[in-house]
Amino acid sequence: MYVILVYDVGEKRVGKMLKLCRRYLHWIQNSVFEGEITPVKLKELLASAKKIMDMECDSIIVFKSREEKWLDKEVVGKERNELGNFL
Amino acid sequence: MYVILVYDVGEKRVGKMLKLCRRYLHWIQNSVFEGEITPVKLKELLASAKKIMDMECDSIIVFKSREEKWLDKEVVGKERNELGNFL
Repeated sequence: MYVILVYDVGEKRVGKMLKLCRRYLHWIQNSVFEGEITPVKLKELLASAKKIMDMECDSIIVFKSREEKWLDKEVVGKERNELGNFL
Repeated sequence: MYVILVYDVGEKRVGKMLKLCRRYLHWIQNSVFEGEITPVKLKELLASAKKIMDMECDSIIVFKSREEKWLDKEVVGKERNELGNFL
């Protein structure tokens, strides 16, 4: 399935979360990722994320769509993902 | 149509952007909004956003779906939107 994942975590945990999410999805903006992922891999990702998160103040939202084609994407301003390859 | 909007703007512009987006959509996380919006209203929102943004470093990504039911949403950790009513 196709997912959009957005996280909001404390500054101290941003680096770890970024690294984790990039193992599974494409980084498209600051704290936003997208990509094809299996339900099993998504569970694995979220289980690892929970270990990083402070559940009192951090959050992750995952939007799931069976097919990417059901979603149109419009970007305004600077596209970030070209940075992704250098980090 | 149903949209998810995510912005990444410099700290100085966050307040203005938040205020603008909340006029059109529901705030669900730090810089993430969702909701039903007409194409005309979305154009209006993005035109106003462009006036706030520094196009060299800021960005907005809008995911559009014809129907909300095509998207499932899963939240891990703290849900932020209950704050929305108090701000």
